[in-house]
Amino acid sequence: MSQPQTVKIGLLGFGNIGAGLVDLIQQNRQAYLQRTGLDLDVTIALVRDLSKSRLYGGVELTTNPSDIYQFRHVDIVVELMGGLEPARTLVLECLRRGKHVVTANKSLLAWHGKEIFRTAARLKRSVGFEASVCGGIPLIRVLNSGLIANEIDLIYGIVNGTTNYILSKMHQDRLGYKQALAEAQEAGFAEPNPHNDVSGIDAAEKLAVLAGLAFGVDVLPNQIPCQGIERLTLEDIRSAEEMGYVIKMLAYGKQSGRSLDLRVQPTLIPNSHPLANVANENNAVFIHGSAVSDMMLYGKGAGRYPTASAVLSDIVEIARSGFVPSRINDNQYISKLTTQKSRFYIRIDIPDRPGAIGKITTHFGKHKISISHAAADLVKRTGSRGRVTILTHDVSEKRLQKALSEIEQWPDLHSHPLAIRVF
Amino acid sequence: MSQPQTVKIGLLGFGNIGAGLVDLIQQNRQAYLQRTGLDLDVTIALVRDLSKSRLYGGVELTTNPSDIYQFRHVDIVVELMGGLEPARTLVLECLRRGKHVVTANKSLLAWHGKEIFRTAARLKRSVGFEASVCGGIPLIRVLNSGLIANEIDLIYGIVNGTTNYILSKMHQDRLGYKQALAEAQEAGFAEPNPHNDVSGIDAAEKLAVLAGLAFGVDVLPNQIPCQGIERLTLEDIRSAEEMGYVIKMLAYGKQSGRSLDLRVQPTLIPNSHPLANVANENNAVFIHGSAVSDMMLYGKGAGRYPTASAVLSDIVEIARSGFVPSRINDNQYISKLTTQKSRFYIRIDIPDRPGAIGKITTHFGKHKISISHAAADLVKRTGSRGRVTILTHDVSEKRLQKALSEIEQWPDLHSHPLAIRVF
Repeated sequence: MSQPQTVKIGLLGFGNIGAGLVDLIQQNRQAYLQRTGLDLDVTIALVRDLSKSRLYGGVELTTNPSDIYQFRHVDIVVELMGGLEPARTLVLECLRRGKHVVTANKSLLAWHGKEIFRTAARLKRSVGFEASVCGGIPLIRVLNSGLIANEIDLIYGIVNGTTNYILSKMHQDRLGYKQALAEAQEAGFAEPNPHNDVSGIDAAEKLAVLAGLAFGVDVLPNQIPCQGIERLTLEDIRSAEEMGYVIKMLAYGKQSGRSLDLRVQPTLIPNSHPLANVANENNAVFIHGSAVSDMMLYGKGAGRYPTASAVLSDIVEIARSGFVPSRINDNQYISKLTTQKSRFYIRIDIPDRPGAIGKITTHFGKHKISISHAAADLVKRTGSRGRVTILTHDVSEKRLQKALSEIEQWPDLHSHPLAIRVF
Repeated sequence: MSQPQTVKIGLLGFGNIGAGLVDLIQQNRQAYLQRTGLDLDVTIALVRDLSKSRLYGGVELTTNPSDIYQFRHVDIVVELMGGLEPARTLVLECLRRGKHVVTANKSLLAWHGKEIFRTAARLKRSVGFEASVCGGIPLIRVLNSGLIANEIDLIYGIVNGTTNYILSKMHQDRLGYKQALAEAQEAGFAEPNPHNDVSGIDAAEKLAVLAGLAFGVDVLPNQIPCQGIERLTLEDIRSAEEMGYVIKMLAYGKQSGRSLDLRVQPTLIPNSHPLANVANENNAVFIHGSAVSDMMLYGKGAGRYPTASAVLSDIVEIARSGFVPSRINDNQYISKLTTQKSRFYIRIDIPDRPGAIGKITTHFGKHKISISHAAADLVKRTGSRGRVTILTHDVSEKRLQKALSEIEQWPDLHSHPLAIRVF
């Protein structure tokens, strides 16, 4: 075997993922050396607090960012700080100083990816970001390399473990939304403030990164329409099941010609679809490529070791190949973000009285929205409420919203109507 | 953008996959150039019959293998002949002449992989083989690169599209085995002689390649125990469904310490398992890695364009990186091939008469095989046959086979008992 190649790694940030990375490298250094010919060594880490005790020896700690990129012989810098600043400034500075960068920071790439990738390409430095979307799943590698022969026109999936865990609990354990959220928080799959996850913001950031890679477009997360899961009830879950569906939080991207349909929303998925069995905190992404047809990747979307595994795969690839070009972003002009027609599941809470279905279906008919299935739940419930559930035929979201906004004017409604797309 | 790098490709064999490869390159040459900086060009192909008309211009045809590796400026040779010889001799010769090789030939690698990979490593030439297992699914890339940080202790999945298509038809359309096979043949998913697929030989070759990659061991396909799907009946499918399972043809590999459990056999998979929804000709492979935990890849396991897509991804990677080392095979001694205990589904066809369950369960009890569920189908069937179905608790295959071989001695049995492992 030839002389091992030493790879000196510097960390920006030394929290959960950083600890996992150092742990993997220190425990498996010999195995990695044998497998790859690379002697990996985390030499220095930027931390906020030097006095905080850390379990890993051999890693010098500093509070001065320039120690990472200026004075040390560091080959690859791994950014694990999260957030936009100072991560953005430091990553750009590292690239300018000739370092390759690996990052697990989806927000950074979703908001500043264009600047970062262009800077890297100009300086012929690599930016590895396998860990930024769907943790341990080698999705970026598959898009960037495995599917290089393909035009990708469709990519969708479950990219947020928190919402998938909550929805799985609702389905499996018959819990209401709040109870399922509480269980997710207790199990460590939801933050104390779950807003970014349950509202779809986290998924929209991931979708922005994936759309850049799959479609070659620059989209910012706030351009992507989001619908959260907060208003879903156990009754919605049950209604979906009765119709042969499971409700999943979906990030969805489809390119047709010059128009793009990007959105994040809860969606009714048929039981027979491979995504239907993706439960708990797992992630899965479906891709349609021009040559390979349908493909799916499934796995852990987060967590210390799955994420560190993804970071390590980038480190090894960059150490072996030097500059690894990304799929080149065509920067094509998007004429418009459009949404396709689809079927919708609608739930309307009304006073429990005769004629409810009739009144609503008549209203839908007025707007030329065709109904495939309608049911009224006549069981008396709290406050003598009733519930009408409707499955429409294909309809544009615009037309549907128009009808629903009129229904919302009715004085005796108990809550806003809920509309969920059917896959 | 820097000067494009021209990549001259020679083909050994110009059948279905070769046509797909040339088709993709000729139709997308500009797009690939823009995306990768590589100008791909298939310059020459070895064929058996020069007079056979081909639709693709610009590719010189020859019947002389040495034209591919000797006289031409070919950078990468793609072997698409299939079979063991002359593929083995030609691939080795190409490596010795300094060519990188890409192959879609699983049989070649399963039987001669050790020789080929060692020759390639010694000469610092790459052997790309993404297309050899599971067609368009980037499984090799994921094992070799995406999961480089992981020890893999478990890999299993649906790696044969023919048997999955047949079993899906039996489940979905309530067809018997022979009828489902006939439909698969009509749809082009089964060969006129389906033996290699339905008996498990094809899957065993793929498993041998995967085991080499995942576990670093050299196993030959004929060392892997195989059970075919030929004896499965619609009744077995129905019984499995009643118990909450779907029957899938599984290639299974598990490493524990120095012992390996490798096998190919139909298996009862719980409905909630992600593999349960992998239908028709699709493939899917589950992997457990030490850092990433569970992961699954799903997609088309065969076909002109999915396979050509995989070949192209190898060509691009080799053109970019030159010598791409494979996971180094540790060549560790396997102390023994063992099989784990598991639950089993047993079906025994007997004359339809009282006491059948009792007689069989008593016999199982004698061998200390614990039964979790037993049922006799008392409906009269052709020839007044009855059927006993049993679900056991965990039992070693050896102990079970001993009991079943005794039961086989009974004079009034209608056929050999059938035993299918439960996942």
